[in-house]
Amino acid sequence: MKISDRHYRAIWRGEDRTVRVIDQSRLPFAFEIRSLDSVESAAQAIRNMVVRGAPLIGATAAYGVALAMQANASTDHLETAIGLLRATRPTAIDLAWALERMQGALASMAVRHRAETAWKLAAQISEDYVEQCRQIGAHGIKLIEPLATRRHPLNILTHCNAGWLCSVDWGTALSPIYMAHDAGVAVHVWVDETRPRNQGASLTAYELAAHGVPHTVIADNLGGHLMQRGRVDMVIVGSDRVTAAGDVCNKVGTYLKALAAHDNGIPFYAAMPVSTIDWNLNSGDQVPIEERSPRELTHVTGLTSGGGIETVRVVPECSPALNLGFDVTPARLVTGLITERGLCAANPSALRRLYDDRRIANA
Amino acid sequence: MKISDRHYRAIWRGEDRTVRVIDQSRLPFAFEIRSLDSVESAAQAIRNMVVRGAPLIGATAAYGVALAMQANASTDHLETAIGLLRATRPTAIDLAWALERMQGALASMAVRHRAETAWKLAAQISEDYVEQCRQIGAHGIKLIEPLATRRHPLNILTHCNAGWLCSVDWGTALSPIYMAHDAGVAVHVWVDETRPRNQGASLTAYELAAHGVPHTVIADNLGGHLMQRGRVDMVIVGSDRVTAAGDVCNKVGTYLKALAAHDNGIPFYAAMPVSTIDWNLNSGDQVPIEERSPRELTHVTGLTSGGGIETVRVVPECSPALNLGFDVTPARLVTGLITERGLCAANPSALRRLYDDRRIANA
Repeated sequence: MKISDRHYRAIWRGEDRTVRVIDQSRLPFAFEIRSLDSVESAAQAIRNMVVRGAPLIGATAAYGVALAMQANASTDHLETAIGLLRATRPTAIDLAWALERMQGALASMAVRHRAETAWKLAAQISEDYVEQCRQIGAHGIKLIEPLATRRHPLNILTHCNAGWLCSVDWGTALSPIYMAHDAGVAVHVWVDETRPRNQGASLTAYELAAHGVPHTVIADNLGGHLMQRGRVDMVIVGSDRVTAAGDVCNKVGTYLKALAAHDNGIPFYAAMPVSTIDWNLNSGDQVPIEERSPRELTHVTGLTSGGGIETVRVVPECSPALNLGFDVTPARLVTGLITERGLCAANPSALRRLYDDRRIANA
Repeated sequence: MKISDRHYRAIWRGEDRTVRVIDQSRLPFAFEIRSLDSVESAAQAIRNMVVRGAPLIGATAAYGVALAMQANASTDHLETAIGLLRATRPTAIDLAWALERMQGALASMAVRHRAETAWKLAAQISEDYVEQCRQIGAHGIKLIEPLATRRHPLNILTHCNAGWLCSVDWGTALSPIYMAHDAGVAVHVWVDETRPRNQGASLTAYELAAHGVPHTVIADNLGGHLMQRGRVDMVIVGSDRVTAAGDVCNKVGTYLKALAAHDNGIPFYAAMPVSTIDWNLNSGDQVPIEERSPRELTHVTGLTSGGGIETVRVVPECSPALNLGFDVTPARLVTGLITERGLCAANPSALRRLYDDRRIANA
């Protein structure tokens, strides 16, 4: 997508045997590109949320394996690298999926071919995400267009960032919105600020503004009231892991919006590539929920009136804080899933058909 | 309640014909007492949220009328003062209630007696709130104690600040919690940070810490997940206005927590004096919802590592923001109301009995 009329992706291979990423921990106030030159730096970028979002974590992990193979293609090092990358974030299933794909291709291959193959495969995983996200957009726009004939603009609420910054290009939840906007459909996005890390206020608002999509930032607390008063027409979120039952794990707070959408008869969709579905999990209770530093909640970083970037404490020092990153929306609250293979009801049998399709495609 | 072992109220009459309040816009990082010496300064303190919370707004408005009468007790000035104070905040019904009580007593009285009567009545309104909040605590603890026999500690979630800082002393939602804690019942409070103004993180956490009540600050987004995983045993919130049908208007985001409590079979209570009930409103749709400056959302104030207080921008400058302060939780999601007259189901007939009780008491 575009920033100041220049096309960017969230990750790409540099010309100097490194990987380049946009530093998302610095947005929206500083646009900085980081070079990752080792598997350790790739792991650190995932852990510190320089890159984040399920698909982008998968792509970065794949490139991390390529960086590892470039340094030392031994089987020991392959396994060490995969272990290091796997331990960075527990919730997003794309991480495990990308690493399994890399390991499956590289482990049985002669050591001397591994580096080149790893680079190719990491690039392929990135390209696949871009194409999947484009397809998610193409399917999702079919949901937006009929609703938009009745509402001008159509008000779509989203939580966290499931835009091109989370997914190499296009995005998951935002891809249908970008496509609708580009096709001339009048859409307006309610952007949950998404505490505690403010990915909505700092990333979703940033990329929507850069692309010219009308939007308004709101507190996470406001969406329910807007739904009660008829000011939200649909909800689209991304996902970090979908169970085989159709439960949607996503950024903490998503479940509250799904409850409010359900209570007010508003369609609630989650958008993700099929690789985000965890076929081995049948219940949302089993999804591991990442606990992150309380500092993400107790401290806020922003721009001072002088133009500097400053971090301030917003919780009294003597008060403890708990910071869990995700929650699980039960399938019963999900109107449907938007995948690169099409729309799918959030239930085991509909998902099963998607799985069979995937097996056919992979054969 | 106590701060550093000294007893404070949120508002009191100074010895120099002024009114003193704790400046809640400076907490938790600075404890400062402000003098209000005119009706204009009282109105400004309400508008700028130096004081906030439905009962404390009522008490401050009453003292504002006393300050006005002290300066000029004419009927014109009485009406001007009441108009000025009434226009400060639209949602909290206690404001209108306190002003009507002042006007009713003063308008028909000889001008020369008005100032003294106004001071006495304002003090009485303050005392009444303290006693009502004490009674709310005494009734509310009866809900906590039986639950606490099964859970150690009992986990109670609250939203915004409905503690002694909002209500002269004791608090509404927090009053039963203070009483339970003082009685040796093991309670632990999940404190919603309460964006965008962070009254939970900055006021509720502050006063619970000062009183020694175990608590943990969480993002507003987290409560639903904690309820799904069995980590919340009950919810108690305050209210800015309750309709005659039992709908509870409170700080924005309350409705989302009520939905999650309902979805997980967790009791959800709202605590308020009977004066918070608006007998003229039959539907939550009719409650006026205050729109405040987007700056409360786009900027965050906190403590720098150097110990200064700094405000930083957290939303990109080119993104608009919307800041509505309240939402309405439909009566069907409210397990019960905790009032100074006892517990009450959130339905018209139960409320009617409370109303009749009040008329008898006022007769």
